[in-house]
Amino acid sequence: MQAIQKQTTDKGLTYLTNVPVPEELRPTDVLIKVKASGICGTDVHIYSAKPSLMNRMGPHLPLTIGHEFCGHIAAMGKAVEGLEIGQFVSAEMHLTCGTCYNCRTGNGHWCLSQTVAGIDSSGAFADYIRLPAKAIIALPTDLPIEVAAYLDAIGNSVYTARSVDVVGKDVAVLGAGPLGILAVALCRIMGARRIYVTDVEPLALSAAKAEGATEVFNVKDEREHNEFIRMATSEKSKQGVDVVLEMSGHPSAYRDAFDVMRIGADMSLLGLPSGEFPVNFSADVVLKGITIHGIFGRRIFNTWTDMLALLQGEFLKSAQRIVTHKFSLGDYDKGFEVKLAGQGLKVVLYPEGNGKV
Amino acid sequence: MQAIQKQTTDKGLTYLTNVPVPEELRPTDVLIKVKASGICGTDVHIYSAKPSLMNRMGPHLPLTIGHEFCGHIAAMGKAVEGLEIGQFVSAEMHLTCGTCYNCRTGNGHWCLSQTVAGIDSSGAFADYIRLPAKAIIALPTDLPIEVAAYLDAIGNSVYTARSVDVVGKDVAVLGAGPLGILAVALCRIMGARRIYVTDVEPLALSAAKAEGATEVFNVKDEREHNEFIRMATSEKSKQGVDVVLEMSGHPSAYRDAFDVMRIGADMSLLGLPSGEFPVNFSADVVLKGITIHGIFGRRIFNTWTDMLALLQGEFLKSAQRIVTHKFSLGDYDKGFEVKLAGQGLKVVLYPEGNGKV
Amino acid sequence: MQAIQKQTTDKGLTYLTNVPVPEELRPTDVLIKVKASGICGTDVHIYSAKPSLMNRMGPHLPLTIGHEFCGHIAAMGKAVEGLEIGQFVSAEMHLTCGTCYNCRTGNGHWCLSQTVAGIDSSGAFADYIRLPAKAIIALPTDLPIEVAAYLDAIGNSVYTARSVDVVGKDVAVLGAGPLGILAVALCRIMGARRIYVTDVEPLALSAAKAEGATEVFNVKDEREHNEFIRMATSEKSKQGVDVVLEMSGHPSAYRDAFDVMRIGADMSLLGLPSGEFPVNFSADVVLKGITIHGIFGRRIFNTWTDMLALLQGEFLKSAQRIVTHKFSLGDYDKGFEVKLAGQGLKVVLYPEGNGKV
Amino acid sequence: MQAIQKQTTDKGLTYLTNVPVPEELRPTDVLIKVKASGICGTDVHIYSAKPSLMNRMGPHLPLTIGHEFCGHIAAMGKAVEGLEIGQFVSAEMHLTCGTCYNCRTGNGHWCLSQTVAGIDSSGAFADYIRLPAKAIIALPTDLPIEVAAYLDAIGNSVYTARSVDVVGKDVAVLGAGPLGILAVALCRIMGARRIYVTDVEPLALSAAKAEGATEVFNVKDEREHNEFIRMATSEKSKQGVDVVLEMSGHPSAYRDAFDVMRIGADMSLLGLPSGEFPVNFSADVVLKGITIHGIFGRRIFNTWTDMLALLQGEFLKSAQRIVTHKFSLGDYDKGFEVKLAGQGLKVVLYPEGNGKV
Repeated sequence: MQAIQKQTTDKGLTYLTNVPVPEELRPTDVLIKVKASGICGTDVHIYSAKPSLMNRMGPHLPLTIGHEFCGHIAAMGKAVEGLEIGQFVSAEMHLTCGTCYNCRTGNGHWCLSQTVAGIDSSGAFADYIRLPAKAIIALPTDLPIEVAAYLDAIGNSVYTARSVDVVGKDVAVLGAGPLGILAVALCRIMGARRIYVTDVEPLALSAAKAEGATEVFNVKDEREHNEFIRMATSEKSKQGVDVVLEMSGHPSAYRDAFDVMRIGADMSLLGLPSGEFPVNFSADVVLKGITIHGIFGRRIFNTWTDMLALLQGEFLKSAQRIVTHKFSLGDYDKGFEVKLAGQGLKVVLYPEGNGKV
Repeated sequence: MQAIQKQTTDKGLTYLTNVPVPEELRPTDVLIKVKASGICGTDVHIYSAKPSLMNRMGPHLPLTIGHEFCGHIAAMGKAVEGLEIGQFVSAEMHLTCGTCYNCRTGNGHWCLSQTVAGIDSSGAFADYIRLPAKAIIALPTDLPIEVAAYLDAIGNSVYTARSVDVVGKDVAVLGAGPLGILAVALCRIMGARRIYVTDVEPLALSAAKAEGATEVFNVKDEREHNEFIRMATSEKSKQGVDVVLEMSGHPSAYRDAFDVMRIGADMSLLGLPSGEFPVNFSADVVLKGITIHGIFGRRIFNTWTDMLALLQGEFLKSAQRIVTHKFSLGDYDKGFEVKLAGQGLKVVLYPEGNGKV
Repeated sequence: MQAIQKQTTDKGLTYLTNVPVPEELRPTDVLIKVKASGICGTDVHIYSAKPSLMNRMGPHLPLTIGHEFCGHIAAMGKAVEGLEIGQFVSAEMHLTCGTCYNCRTGNGHWCLSQTVAGIDSSGAFADYIRLPAKAIIALPTDLPIEVAAYLDAIGNSVYTARSVDVVGKDVAVLGAGPLGILAVALCRIMGARRIYVTDVEPLALSAAKAEGATEVFNVKDEREHNEFIRMATSEKSKQGVDVVLEMSGHPSAYRDAFDVMRIGADMSLLGLPSGEFPVNFSADVVLKGITIHGIFGRRIFNTWTDMLALLQGEFLKSAQRIVTHKFSLGDYDKGFEVKLAGQGLKVVLYPEGNGKV
Repeated sequence: MQAIQKQTTDKGLTYLTNVPVPEELRPTDVLIKVKASGICGTDVHIYSAKPSLMNRMGPHLPLTIGHEFCGHIAAMGKAVEGLEIGQFVSAEMHLTCGTCYNCRTGNGHWCLSQTVAGIDSSGAFADYIRLPAKAIIALPTDLPIEVAAYLDAIGNSVYTARSVDVVGKDVAVLGAGPLGILAVALCRIMGARRIYVTDVEPLALSAAKAEGATEVFNVKDEREHNEFIRMATSEKSKQGVDVVLEMSGHPSAYRDAFDVMRIGADMSLLGLPSGEFPVNFSADVVLKGITIHGIFGRRIFNTWTDMLALLQGEFLKSAQRIVTHKFSLGDYDKGFEVKLAGQGLKVVLYPEGNGKV
C-alpha cells in the first residue's frame, strides 16, 4: 500500500507504495481504509526533523506518520463489538492504557502511558491503519470528508474553548492559527460577548474576523498592540477580559494575557512555548486570582461528542473554511510546502486521489 | 485611645496612647471596641519597612495598622441593620466597592478598587476601629478570643484548602508557616488520603506533623528533598500527587510542585514569590494538563461561613494550637520580636491587657 | 402621581392620579422616575385576585403593584455611593436582607426573608418608585426602553437556560410563554444542537419556532404529542434529550420530561405547578440518575450581568420581539385585557404616555 | 462448583454443588475464584421473589445470583492486559456497553444497555465467576476480605455522600441502613458540621450515632420526629440543613426532607420508593431553589478510586463495623434469615468456609 514514512531522523519524508497492509489483528483491533487525513503542525515538525521529536521517534523508525484522519472499517478482530465493516469512522490517536488512575476516572486524555499513533506507532498517511477498537469513534455518514479528516485538531480547539464558560463573556484569543480561528468561531457560537484576537499574520487575522472576532490586532505593529491592551481593558466595571485562550505558544502572548485579564479571569493554554520564560506569579496570578488551565489533547470522548454535535450546526461551515488545500497522498510534498510557507490553514491528503482530488 | 501606628516609611512602629477614638460615623459605619488582634506577616513587613508596602502606605501615614481582629460593637450609624451594640464580631478587612463586576457577581474578594484597613486606612491595633457595616461578620459568642483574633488569616488557609477537592486525594503542602499548618489540618479534616509537607524549619515541620501530615520533609536537606520527590511520585497508578497547595512563595517550591504533580493535578497558589522566575509552561503545565488557581484573600463571606462552621468542630483545636504567643497591645514590640526571630507561629495582641494577658 | 393600585382583595385594579410621591428617603434609598414597566404573569394573578396572592398581599393593601421596570434616578439618600442623579437603571425587585446565610454566600436570590416590591411593598406601576440602593442595577444608555422594562422577567429565563450546560446538547423547552420563548433563543445562542418545544397555543409555538426551535409540538394534539416523544428519544446513542427546561408548570409536562430525558439528564424547573401531583421517583429520577434544579428568581447580580452582556448581542432582537403591546399607564386595563385574553406576549406600560406610546 | 441459584420465580433460593465452572473465556474475559461476597438488599428481594425482579429475571433462570464480591483471578482471555493470575480483585457488576453516549463521556454508570451480573447474568454466590476484564478493579492486597466483599454497596454510599459538598455543612441522613450508616461516617470524615439521622430502628440509630451522627431521631415517635424538624431548622441564619441524603426510600422521608431543607439546599436520592407519591414541586422545590440528585450505582471507576483511597484511612473501620455476620456459602440460608429478620447490617458469605468462617 501507499504510505508516507519518516525513515531517518534527517529532514524530509518518503513516499512509498510497497508498504505491507497491516494484516495481523489482535482480537480488539480494527483495520481502517483511510479516506483522508490532515497535516498537523506536528507533522511539519516531523518533516523538519525537530530534535525533541526525532529523539522520541528515533527508536521507532521507519514509521508511517499522520494522526488526523477518517476512513471506513475494513476488518475487525474477534472481540470487537459495536462496530461494523464499512462504517465511517475516525479515531482518537492518543492511545491509552485503560488502567491508570486517569484512564479509570474519565480522564483518559491524561493517560500516564499514552502513545500517539503517527508518532510512536504507525499512523494514518497510508491506505490502511490498524488501531485498537476502543480508540474508534463512529462518524455521521453525512460529515464532509475534509472535516472528518482533521477532527483530532478540531477537538483541541473545542476542548480549549469549552474549558471555561464564555456566555456573555469577553474573550481574548491569542494566536490565529487554524485552532485559534476555530476557537473564535466556537466562542461566537457559544454566546461570547466580545472576542479580541491577536496574531502577526494579516491573513490569519482576517480569517479570524470572518469567523466572528469583534476586533483583531496585528501585535507586530506597536500601535495595534497598544490598542489591543487599551480596548481589552477599557470596560470600567471589569478592567479586562474574562477569558484568555492562549493558542500561540509565544511568551509575549503570556505577557499580553496577564496585562488584559481582569481580576478573577480564566486563562486556557493550548499553545506550546519553547523552553522557559520568566513569570511574576505574585503580581500576575496570585494577587489577581487568575485560574490557568493547561489543555492537552481532547477529552476522550467527551470532546468528540461535543464536537460532532457542534458540527451538526453552523460550526461545520467554520471547520470547512479552515481547509484551504487538498492533495492526493502522493503529492504530500505540495501539502508540506504550503504549510512550511505559511500559505494555508489546514491541508488534507487523500490516498485515493491518484493525484487528483 | 491606644494605637500602634506606622508614622514614617522608616523601620519600626510607634505605640501611642492619645489617638482620638473615631467618632464620626457615616450612616453605614460601625465602631468596634477591639478585644484582640493578630500580627500578620504583612505587619512584620510594615515594621521592617518593605519598600513596596512603604510606597503604598506613604501617602496615608501616620496610620494605625493591624488587619486581623475581633471585638464588640460600640456604636452604629443610623442606616445599619441586622447588628446590635455589644455584639461579638470580626470583619473582612478587604474593603470592597460593591459596584464593580466582581462585587456584583459574588466575588467581592476580587473587587477592582478594594482597599485594606490597616494598610490603606486605619486598622485594628487600637482600642477602637471604625468600619463599614457590610464588612462586619457576627461571631458565635463561644468562639475563643485568640482564634477570633486572626480569622482573616485562617480564612486564607480555608480558601486555599477549599479551592480543590481533597477527599481521598494525595496532597503536597509546600510551606509550613501558620497558614500551611492550618491547611494540613484542613486537608486531614476534609478526608485527604496522604498529606506531604515540605519546609526548611524543623519546628514548622513538627507542627505540621502534629496536625496530621502523613510525612514531612526538610527540603534544605538534599536527601530529604529527594525522598519527598520519590515518595510523592511513587504510586504506580498516579505517579504524583493530586493536589499541591503552594504556601511558601519560593520558586524552588514551584519546581517541586511541577515535579511531584500527577498529570491532571491541581495547584493552588497562596504564597507570594518575590519577582519573576522562569517556568517551562509546555512541559510543566500544558502537556501535563495542570490547573493553577491563584488564591487571593478569602471569599466574602463564603469562606467566612465555611470557616466558622469548621471552627465548631475539631479544626478549632488546630487554630488554637497555632497561637503560640500573647501580649498586651503596649508590649507589641515583644510580639514583633518573636515574629522577626521566627520563634513563634501566631502572635495575638490584647488592647485591654495592661501588660498582662 | 399616577399609580395602579390593588385596593382590596377583590378582582381588579385601580388607576389613581393623586398618590403622593415617596418623599422620605432613608440614607440608603434611591427614588426613581419610572420610564416603563412590564406586566408580569403575577400581575395578572393579582388582577384576578388569586387567593394565595390575596392572602399574602391583604395586610399591605392598598398597594401600588408592578415589579418589572426601568427608569432614571431622581433622588438619592445620603449614604448612596456609585450611582448618580439621572442615571438609567432597573432594579432587582426581590429585596434581600443581606445578613442571612444565602445573602452572605453569593446567593441573595435565596434570601430567607426576602420581600418583593410590587407584592409586599410599593411597586413600579407609578410615576416614581423608592427602593434600596443595593437593589439598583445600572443600565447601558442604549438599551431599548421596552426591553429594559421587563429585565426582571428576562432574568428568569436567562437563569433557567444558564443553569445547565447546553453546548451541543439536545434540549426540550416545555412551555412557550414569553420566558419559554426567550429560553429557546438563549439555547440557540449558547450553542445547543436541537431544541424541541411543546405548548398548546399555536401562536406561542410559532414564536418559539421563529426564535430557533428545531421542532415545535402542540401537545394538545395526541399525534403531535406522540411525535414529540418519538423524536426526542430517537437518537440511538442517547435515547433522550440532555436537558429539559420546564417553563409551563403543568403536571403533564413533568410526565413528558421524565419520558424524554436520557439517563443522566438535567431538568430545570421554572414553571409553578398548582398543588401536588404524583411522581414515581424510583423509576423517573433515582434509577435514571436525573438532576433536578429548582429555579427561583434570578441570581443577584450574576444573572443580571450575564443578561446585559447577552443583550448586547443578537439576544436583544429576541427580547424586543417578545414585546407585542405597549400602552400608557392610564390604559393599563387594555394591557391586562390582552394578557387575560392570551393574545400577546409581553405588554409594557409607559407612565409618560398620556395615552400615547 | 458450589453456587446459590434462583431456579424459579417462586420464593427461595437453591444451594447446588454441581454447577459447572465457567470454562469458555472470550478474549476479553476474566475468571475469578470468589473469596467472599456480600448479601445485598436486592438479593433479599430476589429470595422473597419480589414481582418486579422476578419479571426481569424470569427469562434468565436458573441463575447464580450475588453481585458484591472479591476474589482472585484464576484465568484470563488472550486479549486481557494489565491484570495477572492470582491478583486480588473485585468488579463493577453493572456491565456496560462502552459505546453509548454515557459510556463514552465518563458516565458508564448510566450506560443505556447495562446489565447486572447476579440479576441478568451469572453472579458471585459461587466458587467462580466469569466477567469482562474492563469490569475488574484491582484491590490492595491488605484490604480486609469482609470489606472487599461488599465494595459495590459501599460505593453506593460513597457516590451519594460525594455528590454534594458537605464541608462545614449541616446534613440530614434519612434512613440508617448499612448505606445510610456509612454515609454518616463519610460525612463526618469529609468535614460536615452537624449530621442528623432519622430511622425507625433503635439499633440502626445507635449504629449511626457510633459513626459520628450529631443527633439521631426515631421518627416513629412523634415527639422525636417533631424534635428532628425543630433542631434541623433551628439555626437562624439558615433555617434548615444544607444537604439531605435520602437513603430510606420512604415517602415520609421526602416530606421530612422538604421540611428541613434550607432554601437552596441539595438533596441526593439513593433510596428507592415503591410507586408514586404526591409532591408539591412549586412550594417544595421550585420556590425553594432545591437541587435534587438521583443517584444510581457508582461512578465507574471514579467512585471506586475514591472509595479505595478512603478505605486506606479511618473509613475502613466504619466499613468493618457494618459487617455483623459471616457464614459459609453453604449456610447462605442463615445469612438470609438474619437479613429477613432485620437483625444485622451486612452479611458476608465465604465459599471456602466449609461451614466455618
